[in-house]
Amino acid sequence: MNRRQFFKQAGVAGVGAAALAAPAIAQENPKITWRLASSFPKSLDIIYGAATDIAESVSKATDGQFQIQVYAAGEILPPLEVADAIADDTVEMGHTCCYYYIGKDPAFALGTAIPFGLNARMTNAWFTAGGGNELLNEFLAPYKIYALPAGNTGAQMGGWYRKEIKTIDDLKGLKMRIAGLAGEIMTKVGVTPQQIAGSDVYPALEKGAIDATEFVGPYDDLQLGFYKVAPYYYYPAWWEGGPTVHAFFNLEKFNALPESYKRILTDACAAANARMLARYDASNPQALRELVAGGAQLRAFTTDILDTCHKAAKETYADLSAKNEWFKKLYDSQQAFKQDAYLWTQIAEYSFDTYQMIQQRQGTL
Amino acid sequence: MNRRQFFKQAGVAGVGAAALAAPAIAQENPKITWRLASSFPKSLDIIYGAATDIAESVSKATDGQFQIQVYAAGEILPPLEVADAIADDTVEMGHTCCYYYIGKDPAFALGTAIPFGLNARMTNAWFTAGGGNELLNEFLAPYKIYALPAGNTGAQMGGWYRKEIKTIDDLKGLKMRIAGLAGEIMTKVGVTPQQIAGSDVYPALEKGAIDATEFVGPYDDLQLGFYKVAPYYYYPAWWEGGPTVHAFFNLEKFNALPESYKRILTDACAAANARMLARYDASNPQALRELVAGGAQLRAFTTDILDTCHKAAKETYADLSAKNEWFKKLYDSQQAFKQDAYLWTQIAEYSFDTYQMIQQRQGTL
Repeated sequence: MNRRQFFKQAGVAGVGAAALAAPAIAQENPKITWRLASSFPKSLDIIYGAATDIAESVSKATDGQFQIQVYAAGEILPPLEVADAIADDTVEMGHTCCYYYIGKDPAFALGTAIPFGLNARMTNAWFTAGGGNELLNEFLAPYKIYALPAGNTGAQMGGWYRKEIKTIDDLKGLKMRIAGLAGEIMTKVGVTPQQIAGSDVYPALEKGAIDATEFVGPYDDLQLGFYKVAPYYYYPAWWEGGPTVHAFFNLEKFNALPESYKRILTDACAAANARMLARYDASNPQALRELVAGGAQLRAFTTDILDTCHKAAKETYADLSAKNEWFKKLYDSQQAFKQDAYLWTQIAEYSFDTYQMIQQRQGTL
Repeated sequence: MNRRQFFKQAGVAGVGAAALAAPAIAQENPKITWRLASSFPKSLDIIYGAATDIAESVSKATDGQFQIQVYAAGEILPPLEVADAIADDTVEMGHTCCYYYIGKDPAFALGTAIPFGLNARMTNAWFTAGGGNELLNEFLAPYKIYALPAGNTGAQMGGWYRKEIKTIDDLKGLKMRIAGLAGEIMTKVGVTPQQIAGSDVYPALEKGAIDATEFVGPYDDLQLGFYKVAPYYYYPAWWEGGPTVHAFFNLEKFNALPESYKRILTDACAAANARMLARYDASNPQALRELVAGGAQLRAFTTDILDTCHKAAKETYADLSAKNEWFKKLYDSQQAFKQDAYLWTQIAEYSFDTYQMIQQRQGTL
């Protein structure tokens, strides 16, 4: 019996039936369309793709009732205005990084990554099971934002340099495209941070208008071709051991969702968070090979350089903690978690990986 | 206006209204109840909890329409009979490990972990973005099983030993509770694997009926108190660098689900997979401290011992690959992925972690 036959046999007038069916469905499966502003261009396909991944999950899980329209950086909003647009409900949702908003409060940095902070796995553990997500959202609530982790790149590379950086002196006076807290710490060790739009970085490096730039990791860096003009590719990005990309929601809009949609969205973000890291992990090795084949020179930052930067970072954190309550709260929580996490990581995890890498160098992995 | 008031004012009889609402919902949101048999006891609360995590997600995401009833090991099925019970549709779903079923085919081992295989993050990347999930499910289809990763413990510990294991000779004649492929490889280096029920392990160790046992990691091991009778706690479990716990589904039942339920279940498993690892990562450090305070003696397997076991593992894989097509397919896929993955991991990821651990030992992390 189809619905029309049923209505007929049940002897209920069509209009009454339609009116009647609505409330029961409306509570469970309302038709909703949201706009998501990404801070990323489509060319960063793995990062950008996490937003479409979430949108696809939500649409499929709700039989198309809950639609999220994804807009790349610049399509409806400049990339760094996503937080404000969510706060004033211009868009319901964003895909962005907390640390883009340190101009509002330096504590935003701790939502993404801070220099010498947590690695990707520890970041996920802190958010999920270390109280991190609750703490970050307590901090974000006055900004009318609710946030869920929705992507991680893993440890990034330390960027591209026109000349080798052998000692801390080689950093002095270096004009480097680097922003945020990392830029502030770099300033302390003598670097002159530069703010340049993405499309201008290559020509600036080529002409020597800047000496270095940081970006992401092999997969994304390969596209931009920096290796052709600044071949020294340093590691690690001590400022991004495992940065989180977040889904931002207008807090009221998220809270007003039916419980079922909240859970669907929450799991979709958790899944996208894991999938982004997996995609980078699966894509970086081949890109690394191509970069090296193209002339990229891999170089590790020396312990001396790292020590100097680490000391500068610690000073910065002490200063910020002294004058900023939220920075201190989030920093202390991450620090305690990090110290515990490395206590354990160094045992089984690190020794397993170390042995495997020894085998790899011997050609016996 | 609540629903009852609405019905009353709309002037429709209660029974008719209830009957009417059903068909429209039925197509999208059918009422389904599944039984999930776990291979794990409730006492392993993080592993077992991933199954209840999935059930909770699915229930919330469907407004209670899709219910999964979770049964702990032994409640409705013996722990190692989950795969068979799913194949014959006694239960629709399980939470178990592929490698429990190597008696059917040794290739099952590659669904969980093989000695000197992938670490947790690489495992996730292989399943998600390295073709692993598709390949494993092609292998599982004739067993009428569809599988999704639904938990990972991270690198495990190498177990508890009554005496120190200083050289490979100390392994010779050792009676150790260890199963599966790891047990076969241990046999090659002189160990005598023992099969003992979980509850009998402690008294057997205490009396010296066995000399050693492997288990999981600090959080789970602490509960069982092995450190009191076999204090040498070795690392790493070279046989479990990042074992995956799987959600198993009866293949036909999964395929018959509405698309929305499939996506909800898929994301719920992906989220649970990440959350289990996060919970272990957040819980292991404190447990490790308690174990050490209780007298556990941490010891690393020597490179000599690892080399001998690694060589034995390689021989085992060559033998199995020569006679088992599915073992070879899955193994070759994982091997290629692992070699790529460590190529990249050794650069930014490993150097970031290494520096952090140096700081930790210096007390400056």
